[in-house]
Amino acid sequence: MDRPIDYARYDRIRPILWTGDTLDLLDQRKLPFQVEHLSSSTSDEVAAAIHALAVRGAPAIGIAAAWGVVLAGREVEAADGAEAALKMEPALQRLNAARPTAVNLAWALARMRRVLQVAGADWRLVLEREAQAIADEDLAANRHMGALGAGLIEAGSGVLTHCNTGSLATAGFGTALGVIRAGVAQHRIGKVFADETRPWQQGARLTVWELQQDGIDATLIADSAAAHLMKTGAVQWVVVGADRICANGDTANKIGTYQLAIAARHHGVKFMVVAPSSTVDMETANGELIEIEERDASEMLGIGGVRIVAEGIHAWNPVFDVTPGDLIDAIVTEKGVIEQPTLDKMRAAFG
Amino acid sequence: MDRPIDYARYDRIRPILWTGDTLDLLDQRKLPFQVEHLSSSTSDEVAAAIHALAVRGAPAIGIAAAWGVVLAGREVEAADGAEAALKMEPALQRLNAARPTAVNLAWALARMRRVLQVAGADWRLVLEREAQAIADEDLAANRHMGALGAGLIEAGSGVLTHCNTGSLATAGFGTALGVIRAGVAQHRIGKVFADETRPWQQGARLTVWELQQDGIDATLIADSAAAHLMKTGAVQWVVVGADRICANGDTANKIGTYQLAIAARHHGVKFMVVAPSSTVDMETANGELIEIEERDASEMLGIGGVRIVAEGIHAWNPVFDVTPGDLIDAIVTEKGVIEQPTLDKMRAAFG
Repeated sequence: MDRPIDYARYDRIRPILWTGDTLDLLDQRKLPFQVEHLSSSTSDEVAAAIHALAVRGAPAIGIAAAWGVVLAGREVEAADGAEAALKMEPALQRLNAARPTAVNLAWALARMRRVLQVAGADWRLVLEREAQAIADEDLAANRHMGALGAGLIEAGSGVLTHCNTGSLATAGFGTALGVIRAGVAQHRIGKVFADETRPWQQGARLTVWELQQDGIDATLIADSAAAHLMKTGAVQWVVVGADRICANGDTANKIGTYQLAIAARHHGVKFMVVAPSSTVDMETANGELIEIEERDASEMLGIGGVRIVAEGIHAWNPVFDVTPGDLIDAIVTEKGVIEQPTLDKMRAAFG
Repeated sequence: MDRPIDYARYDRIRPILWTGDTLDLLDQRKLPFQVEHLSSSTSDEVAAAIHALAVRGAPAIGIAAAWGVVLAGREVEAADGAEAALKMEPALQRLNAARPTAVNLAWALARMRRVLQVAGADWRLVLEREAQAIADEDLAANRHMGALGAGLIEAGSGVLTHCNTGSLATAGFGTALGVIRAGVAQHRIGKVFADETRPWQQGARLTVWELQQDGIDATLIADSAAAHLMKTGAVQWVVVGADRICANGDTANKIGTYQLAIAARHHGVKFMVVAPSSTVDMETANGELIEIEERDASEMLGIGGVRIVAEGIHAWNPVFDVTPGDLIDAIVTEKGVIEQPTLDKMRAAFG
């Protein structure tokens, strides 16, 4: 029997706070040195915060957008939900455009739209309850996925994770980082490595800091040291999150994920994707069809406000890449585990 | 017929200047924003400059060490070379210990020792001539390797390079970057990509800057974007240098090289190692036997003096990795090209 997990222990970081009037987002651009919340009182401020990466991580973006819809409701007058939906649609479109790759954003907006359209005079309350439900369900899903994913890991394993998939990227506990939290709590995981995740340094700035808050010791490595680490035998699993999982298991995630998956397969290291089912997009047949967000080259030209590259240099800054389903050993959602994902297995699980 | 290469065009950057009294090294820690030489007037100052990465790149380290031996000669009195060699040995040992992985360092010191031991009263002059010969031969080797390596590349190819292997890493023109210079001059290479090369940013700080001086447009990418770049079909060759090439073709080079080689093989992208024959170490049977330098974790915790990681975080900072010979399509030295290196082919070329 696995040890029970004391979830309260992992509850310290609250990246998304709804105050009743404002959405206060833990500003991830300033971590780990400043722990500050950025307050939004309009839906456009929420969209701007999402675009500027004050909040990031596919599930967190979806939850923030849902609260953005609640704020959008404060900006219109309407007798019922259908009328409100019509008037709010431009604001929802602007929220949807804030980041193109994460499917959770569109998913959360669709869910908010759906309850709004059938709501009566209390449509504002309905929106608020739905946003809270999205957040609550995300936290519950993460705890469940943590246990499911940890169950795949042999005792004494080392794991490597990429980007940040923790409390900071979700309503709490995390997706891939939830599996790592559960695996450490159950003594399945002996050693945790996190890569830096250039250019935005989510691993270096966020993941190792977040684990440090929980008393979990993680070792930071350069992104390019992962294959060398695997060769030493120190890791048995790579555990990552996802921004979009296609019908055939192809998975869009932070740039560098694909490179890790190739290196993992080369070394016989297993590769696990952990994401809520809201990340699964059965409408997109495969990864070739995913629009990959490219961000401004300036993110590659400096770090922490310090320019590191000469003037006049060009950079290419794709934010995501696609890992083919056949390089993935397990996709973990709150609905269960799919090993060696295929279209048939995905259809059976997600219709 | 390939176009002739105007080598004078690539002669602007002089990282290693011998003034007759001092060794002035272009301080690579300050590039690209400050172009400053660091002057050494003792062999220990040269050793310190090598250790501190003011000069880097396997061939450049060897050349700098050779001039360090000349300076060591100024610090002793001796009637002939044999006596000088005895008195200078402690200084040579300190030079040798400055960096453990680059074989060129030990090679240059051995070469200096050899001429010294049989020199007469003019042993100081003999040392100075030998150091100059090492530098001159390196430049000639690089030009020759540039033509040989470029000859392997189909017209219209894209190439990706790692770390810095250019004028800054050699006596001039560069090893892998020499192949890229020659390939661009001959219109074989249409597009050049350079990865950032964390943690020391040799790609971002040095390579794209160095190519910019020559009017060669290079696009900077994150280290973890390489596999995604390969998937787009934009590159046909990865071209890298080497710090040590073993008897079976296994090659130690900057951390991340191995990961690129795995990704290249996965995509059918070819992989070329370019290094002078002084980098070949037939005494080391294979890569398992190479000592991999690990540098201080602090290099991972900040950039340009700016801390980017929370206090109390651990990092693992291996500086090199080993790419197995069977992931290498071509090893180019000034002695010729070895395709698909094996022990037999290496023995035939290097005894």
